[in-house]
Amino acid sequence: MNDLEITGLTHSYGRDARALDGVGFAVPRGSIVGLLGPNGSGKSTLIKNVFDLLRPQAGTITIDGSPHAAPDAKRKAVYLSSNDYLPEFLTAAEYAAMIARFYGLEVDREEALELFSRFGMDGRYDDLVEDYSHGMRKKTQLMVALMVRRRLTVIDETLNGVDLEALHLAEKELAGLRDEGLSVLLCTHDFPVLERLADEVVFLDRGRVVYNAPTADLVAEHGSLERMVYGYLESGER
Amino acid sequence: MNDLEITGLTHSYGRDARALDGVGFAVPRGSIVGLLGPNGSGKSTLIKNVFDLLRPQAGTITIDGSPHAAPDAKRKAVYLSSNDYLPEFLTAAEYAAMIARFYGLEVDREEALELFSRFGMDGRYDDLVEDYSHGMRKKTQLMVALMVRRRLTVIDETLNGVDLEALHLAEKELAGLRDEGLSVLLCTHDFPVLERLADEVVFLDRGRVVYNAPTADLVAEHGSLERMVYGYLESGER
Amino acid sequence: MNDLEITGLTHSYGRDARALDGVGFAVPRGSIVGLLGPNGSGKSTLIKNVFDLLRPQAGTITIDGSPHAAPDAKRKAVYLSSNDYLPEFLTAAEYAAMIARFYGLEVDREEALELFSRFGMDGRYDDLVEDYSHGMRKKTQLMVALMVRRRLTVIDETLNGVDLEALHLAEKELAGLRDEGLSVLLCTHDFPVLERLADEVVFLDRGRVVYNAPTADLVAEHGSLERMVYGYLESGER
Amino acid sequence: MNDLEITGLTHSYGRDARALDGVGFAVPRGSIVGLLGPNGSGKSTLIKNVFDLLRPQAGTITIDGSPHAAPDAKRKAVYLSSNDYLPEFLTAAEYAAMIARFYGLEVDREEALELFSRFGMDGRYDDLVEDYSHGMRKKTQLMVALMVRRRLTVIDETLNGVDLEALHLAEKELAGLRDEGLSVLLCTHDFPVLERLADEVVFLDRGRVVYNAPTADLVAEHGSLERMVYGYLESGER
Repeated sequence: MNDLEITGLTHSYGRDARALDGVGFAVPRGSIVGLLGPNGSGKSTLIKNVFDLLRPQAGTITIDGSPHAAPDAKRKAVYLSSNDYLPEFLTAAEYAAMIARFYGLEVDREEALELFSRFGMDGRYDDLVEDYSHGMRKKTQLMVALMVRRRLTVIDETLNGVDLEALHLAEKELAGLRDEGLSVLLCTHDFPVLERLADEVVFLDRGRVVYNAPTADLVAEHGSLERMVYGYLESGER
Repeated sequence: MNDLEITGLTHSYGRDARALDGVGFAVPRGSIVGLLGPNGSGKSTLIKNVFDLLRPQAGTITIDGSPHAAPDAKRKAVYLSSNDYLPEFLTAAEYAAMIARFYGLEVDREEALELFSRFGMDGRYDDLVEDYSHGMRKKTQLMVALMVRRRLTVIDETLNGVDLEALHLAEKELAGLRDEGLSVLLCTHDFPVLERLADEVVFLDRGRVVYNAPTADLVAEHGSLERMVYGYLESGER
Repeated sequence: MNDLEITGLTHSYGRDARALDGVGFAVPRGSIVGLLGPNGSGKSTLIKNVFDLLRPQAGTITIDGSPHAAPDAKRKAVYLSSNDYLPEFLTAAEYAAMIARFYGLEVDREEALELFSRFGMDGRYDDLVEDYSHGMRKKTQLMVALMVRRRLTVIDETLNGVDLEALHLAEKELAGLRDEGLSVLLCTHDFPVLERLADEVVFLDRGRVVYNAPTADLVAEHGSLERMVYGYLESGER
Repeated sequence: MNDLEITGLTHSYGRDARALDGVGFAVPRGSIVGLLGPNGSGKSTLIKNVFDLLRPQAGTITIDGSPHAAPDAKRKAVYLSSNDYLPEFLTAAEYAAMIARFYGLEVDREEALELFSRFGMDGRYDDLVEDYSHGMRKKTQLMVALMVRRRLTVIDETLNGVDLEALHLAEKELAGLRDEGLSVLLCTHDFPVLERLADEVVFLDRGRVVYNAPTADLVAEHGSLERMVYGYLESGER
């Protein structure tokens, strides 16, 4: 069973070359899959397709077995954006409630406060987002995703630049999601995080899947994910 | 018929004094109502209640006659936030499509391009929001609201700091919404904009309605909205 | 005696039409002069020339009688930017000290705290700027300018979007600078603020001075600054 | 010869525990030194002391042998901030010129354009910073530092979140600075970047130096920098 399954996904903007050209891969239930790609790899286009922000031009996407644009599929996935995009006019508590309501859930205030405390944001849960630093906004995105615990969590470079301790804690929390049988698509070019956490890695370039294999196999073959990626980028293969 | 009707709205945070204390006013169909208030007036709490981001503790809110939290009521109102809050990872075109879809609409691309051109953003409709200046983000919020043309448009200090020409054009466009029989709740402390545009003005302070009358009457009585507001704030009445 | 005097200022970017084409005006000692202009008027280019961020291609600029690029001239003027540009990694106290030191001054901590309190930022002076809202950042720029009290203060749309009370207080403080014999160049399209505060108004369009006269005269002639500006923009004169 | 030398640096805020408590380390000429520390380690306070934004309360700092607050010392070091702090109202070209002028240099436009092109910012050198994405702002900070090539470059988490290719290129450029005999203090918790680039690593916690040794030795002893850091943070030693 796959929590996310993508087959033959193709997308072009105008007359330009294809942003996605027949991409297919899966996030199996209870796994963490890393997604890697340079600028122009098609990663953003892919994520926009998964969250129905762009309409697939060819190919299929299913979330937990349902077509991705169906209302119940939408309620099974949560997206953490690549920046600190949060409504500044809300408090974290109001934001969490808004997101939870979208999923038909209620926030447990005690749990939320405990999570905020563990992520070094004691006493800030009822403050307006506009008074948060960039790092705090990113951590808030993550904590709200941890509160709603969806079948599929997609993390798009969200944790760049958060503090050392939050990053360490985040890794444990993501592993915890997997331990509960939930899945994560982790888009990051923090190679060692991927080497520690990801069961499989997908490497995209110019709209195609270049590598898609268990992390251990890719590391065994290339020495490290980093060597794999930079070796590829500097090679003539591209 | 009122596009927005608020009666007896009361809201407290924790044990603090009441943020809203029995507030009531209406936005009649086909009108522009100005909403004014200093820090701590309760304006933000009121808007969050209208858009169901906070649950009313007492009182009622209807949008076009329906309870504000009902799905059809939600599809009749659009909110423009007090800052340049837009998803950076989308283009304006993708953002407009996302918002339109929420309302069950489709964006007419030609009209959108024409609007972008008039607001001085020629050729930028398919650029990522992350490459927009603050002013461009604010204008984009407004233009998308103009595309979806809801029964009620709530503008929360959104246009602070946009350029002279956009501001002038925005005024005409808002008057245009009214001419079509749509309504606007315009939260701004740009007094002359209110004097030119608003049919009525509501002035809140400390969670209560201080003034609520036709703009012309308030200007006749106080000389100008500005004198009304600063006169009140400096008086002992408060 | 003029605190700022500009004569024949001309500036072109590449082969484009002239951004500034022989602009001249003065800010007399102990006065507030408003500077108005639509997009592309040359206002930004003018300010960058005054602060030596662009090199004048023709014309002269003096600050308190000295050539504007001379070190002592630079220490006589302070610039408040059009956005909330402040170093996020500093506290307001550290930022104020850094600016004061540039001018060879020391910040009086008691006065600073009192100013922060009056501007509604009690207890925030030693917080990092990264935890400030946009409005707080703008107010901090203004307060630091009030602490260093230079001969010439140039305010470039800085106060757009700050709260009602801060705006009201800001007006009094700027009038206070004038009462001490200092000068302000106030770039804003908040027309009533200009009508209340500015002794003279300069209106730029397409790199040329269109109007430059005492505010009272311009209001007498055109009805209001707003009518003057929008009348001009919509006329064929342009 | 050390490009940066810190001895006995101590700093307290108010009555709180010491932010820095006798910190000492050096950045030898022609080397890259990594600086690591969790929240509250004192890293920010240390950097503010080096750049004279806070006055040392005890201890000494020299840059290229001169006391750090001396004008010539200040002209030998460049600071890249932890966020994308750049003046939005300037173009990159204007910003680069402003920074270069502070160091008594001129920007070679051809070289600047070539650098922008290599960092994926072709054709953007004369655009306003306000139209740059976060990643572009960070890359601009780095490129300007590469243009002015100071004796000591201090990079404070600046490159978090830039794209894969820029990061790879940045590493080469920093190695290039070292090859020219210049020095870098690289504050990042990107462990593999440190393992590849840094000749030595300093690990701070609670205002004290916990580890300071050649990177190779630390890796040999602990397995990796990451294990060293998280092992320490989770141990009772702290």
